[in-house]
Amino acid sequence: MTAYQQLSSRFHRLHQLSHLQAMVSWDGATMMPSGGNQARANAMAELGVIIHQQMAATDLSELFKQAKKESLEPWQAANLHEMHNSWQKTNVLPEDLVREKSLAGAKCEHEWRSQRGENNWAGFAENLKPVVELTRKEAEIRAKATGCSRYDALLNVFEPGMTTEKLDKIFGQVKSWLPELIQKVQQKQKAEALIQPLIVPQGPFPVAAQESLGRDVMGLLGFDFNRGRLDISMHPFCGGVPEDVRITTRYDEADFTQSLMGIVHETGHARYEQNLPLEWISQPVARARSMGIHESQSLFFEMQLGRHPGFLELILPKIKQHLTDQSALSLENLQTLYTQVNPGNIRVDADEVTYPAHVILRYEIEKALIEGEMEVDDIPAVWNQKMQQYLGLNTEGNFKDGPMQDIHWTDGAIGYFPSYTLGAMYAAQQFSTIRKQLPNVDQMIAKGDLAPIFDWLQQNIWSQASRYDTDTLIEKATGETLNPEYFRQHLENRYL
Amino acid sequence: MTAYQQLSSRFHRLHQLSHLQAMVSWDGATMMPSGGNQARANAMAELGVIIHQQMAATDLSELFKQAKKESLEPWQAANLHEMHNSWQKTNVLPEDLVREKSLAGAKCEHEWRSQRGENNWAGFAENLKPVVELTRKEAEIRAKATGCSRYDALLNVFEPGMTTEKLDKIFGQVKSWLPELIQKVQQKQKAEALIQPLIVPQGPFPVAAQESLGRDVMGLLGFDFNRGRLDISMHPFCGGVPEDVRITTRYDEADFTQSLMGIVHETGHARYEQNLPLEWISQPVARARSMGIHESQSLFFEMQLGRHPGFLELILPKIKQHLTDQSALSLENLQTLYTQVNPGNIRVDADEVTYPAHVILRYEIEKALIEGEMEVDDIPAVWNQKMQQYLGLNTEGNFKDGPMQDIHWTDGAIGYFPSYTLGAMYAAQQFSTIRKQLPNVDQMIAKGDLAPIFDWLQQNIWSQASRYDTDTLIEKATGETLNPEYFRQHLENRYL
Ligand SMILES: [Zn+2]
Ligand SMILES: [Zn+2]
Repeated sequence: MTAYQQLSSRFHRLHQLSHLQAMVSWDGATMMPSGGNQARANAMAELGVIIHQQMAATDLSELFKQAKKESLEPWQAANLHEMHNSWQKTNVLPEDLVREKSLAGAKCEHEWRSQRGENNWAGFAENLKPVVELTRKEAEIRAKATGCSRYDALLNVFEPGMTTEKLDKIFGQVKSWLPELIQKVQQKQKAEALIQPLIVPQGPFPVAAQESLGRDVMGLLGFDFNRGRLDISMHPFCGGVPEDVRITTRYDEADFTQSLMGIVHETGHARYEQNLPLEWISQPVARARSMGIHESQSLFFEMQLGRHPGFLELILPKIKQHLTDQSALSLENLQTLYTQVNPGNIRVDADEVTYPAHVILRYEIEKALIEGEMEVDDIPAVWNQKMQQYLGLNTEGNFKDGPMQDIHWTDGAIGYFPSYTLGAMYAAQQFSTIRKQLPNVDQMIAKGDLAPIFDWLQQNIWSQASRYDTDTLIEKATGETLNPEYFRQHLENRYL
Repeated sequence: MTAYQQLSSRFHRLHQLSHLQAMVSWDGATMMPSGGNQARANAMAELGVIIHQQMAATDLSELFKQAKKESLEPWQAANLHEMHNSWQKTNVLPEDLVREKSLAGAKCEHEWRSQRGENNWAGFAENLKPVVELTRKEAEIRAKATGCSRYDALLNVFEPGMTTEKLDKIFGQVKSWLPELIQKVQQKQKAEALIQPLIVPQGPFPVAAQESLGRDVMGLLGFDFNRGRLDISMHPFCGGVPEDVRITTRYDEADFTQSLMGIVHETGHARYEQNLPLEWISQPVARARSMGIHESQSLFFEMQLGRHPGFLELILPKIKQHLTDQSALSLENLQTLYTQVNPGNIRVDADEVTYPAHVILRYEIEKALIEGEMEVDDIPAVWNQKMQQYLGLNTEGNFKDGPMQDIHWTDGAIGYFPSYTLGAMYAAQQFSTIRKQLPNVDQMIAKGDLAPIFDWLQQNIWSQASRYDTDTLIEKATGETLNPEYFRQHLENRYL
């Protein structure tokens, strides 16, 4: 066996363990009764130890050295690169740091669950400080190993190839036009509401009916139920393994619209996973390219496709069929419902126009925290100042709907937030390319002729997995690297 | 650390892996879409390899030697004994044999799934022969290692401490009175049916209503839903882990009676698991004593308690509440429904009176196969002869409802069948002891005062786990070792 083959076989075995991890995690979020929690945590910890041991095998370093000298096909070379990245990400950190961060993060997250409700910033800050301190250490070690800045090193865990330099430029452009756009859209929507007020659909919409509507729409979107499931969880997610993708939602009997669009979003994640290249499936090269590209698929489904007037026209009869018919369910009113723009405090409730402001604010704060330009105690004031500046909202003293609203920082997942808005931008750029290649795309969507769109995604994104770096993937797919103008055009076309 | 402590820590880690195995197996039977099957099989195989490697660690043998010299508390000593048994069972077989048997079994089982429908004995026999041959080899190796007969060695995998000598005596007694008892019961039931014909409840009984009835009855039986679930699977089972016990059933909308009593049966298994001693839970001594004792708990629930006239009286209002009221749902008719005795070809459909005949027949055949006194080609003739003798049924040429009906032999699980009838006998003996200690037990059941019964099981069976060998466990609980007379008395009291 060549060194490459030996490495490939090691990662094949690791893939089996990831399968167990993924399925048992899914179970924990969807099926497990609360009394099973402690035993489950112990079992997951043991699995983590075994995976870590396999990754830390002393001969891997030498195998990587040798494999780099071997002659490889392009997919193999890409796979070697991904194997090495994955190995390095895991092994560069000393075990002590990993354990300390995990303990500090668990404590911070656990206490956050009650502190948030109590608006207890002081208590939260005490727990967040050690997490930030340990994440700074992590960033320093990762930066030294890869030769980049500290924040870039964290960013690369989620978004390989992305840099602060690029992000500052991209987000800088967005900041130059977003506040004005938000104001214009709000004025326009206020004027429209005077002529045609929004009608809110009246429930209750039984869970079983919403679920059958959701399944129907998932079918329309090409979800393969022979290799996946739809279930319920507190926080919706897409989990499982590519051969068996498990998406979840949460139903509100008073309002079907959120769950329905949530299912469309997770179905975008799911189709990416279900269409990763099967012939490489156990290897790192077959994984989704990055968090940003993953989110580009869910946001392509939810925003580009799901809120497209033609798509709403397409699913309106299904909504009426599974739920009740009522005056709120006119096509015009449904479109208005799904395109309301309202600056608010909460990121996860934000519409697609105001969402980037939430992300940019968090990016700027977490970058400053990691680069040592800011301290935890400074967060609330900076938060309030930026919320005023970007969204015109005062959040002074409202910590629970301010810097305490997200789970990400509690366990030190710093560097993740940019992925959300990068995803929205990649999605807009992809849809714009499709529109050039399929000039009738609007009519096609309304008629339910979605196959050519999915074929494009399959060919350009899903089947490519981690074959190329993100810039190359997007350039091959759309003719250029990330260009936020497509996102701006999308927002202006839809909302102005 | 003492050698005992080191061993205990190894088995603690193995327990975490068993947790993953149990939960992912449950998922495969209840949740997994069929397209996920191949990936799942690969992941489970890898987990099996890791467990095997940990069990095969070369230092374990020396640790066992040392631990035997250390001074241990009684529970520790029992735990050491169970660790050693578990280790020896796994390690005594050469890897080649394990793999060959697993492959031959998988082939036999896979083809059996279609061959059974085709009544294709010749095809099945070709696959069964290598399975029997490899199981004979397994029996020989296990026998040599433990110094017992070949069939006893297989029996001990499922029923430690049980021997052919004891079984021949016990089953010999049963054979001396069972055929006549069956005849008498049938005559009695025929006469009764002339006076008061059986009324079959008329469905449909919606799955959701049956499920809520099932949950209600599980609650009555003390199932802890905070540490367990009820779901649906093709073949009902009790799985999961003691901290999170997952039972399943299968609903037939035309007939609620089977699923309801199936749930009562699995709840018996579940309460045993849920009440194993938590302070030892990761150690082998905390496992259920044996398959026979496990089945004694499910059959205690299903037969001793579930078909008790007082229990039927207790749940009748619940049946009416969740399903429909109708003339078939009188207490008398429900009792008649649940105590019908009819010799039939199929073991899993058998009533408690004819069930032992099915087990004894299989025991006699599989023992002769393993001891080399019979060959696979002889099975159909012997099967037919014994079915005539024990149940008065001719099965000539009907292989699919004869020797091809069970899955057990297909993958060489020989030595398992006796557990079913041992369980029924242990259950009768346990209930008889409870009746002596609680003379009002019949009235208590009808009133729903079940706690004293569960307390007895908790104290005498569940909390004892594998602290004692089976004979000692039963003697401490009931004052004597297994005595089939209690089972006979139970059947005569209920059916004559
Ligand atoms: Zn998403
Ligand atoms: Zn059972």
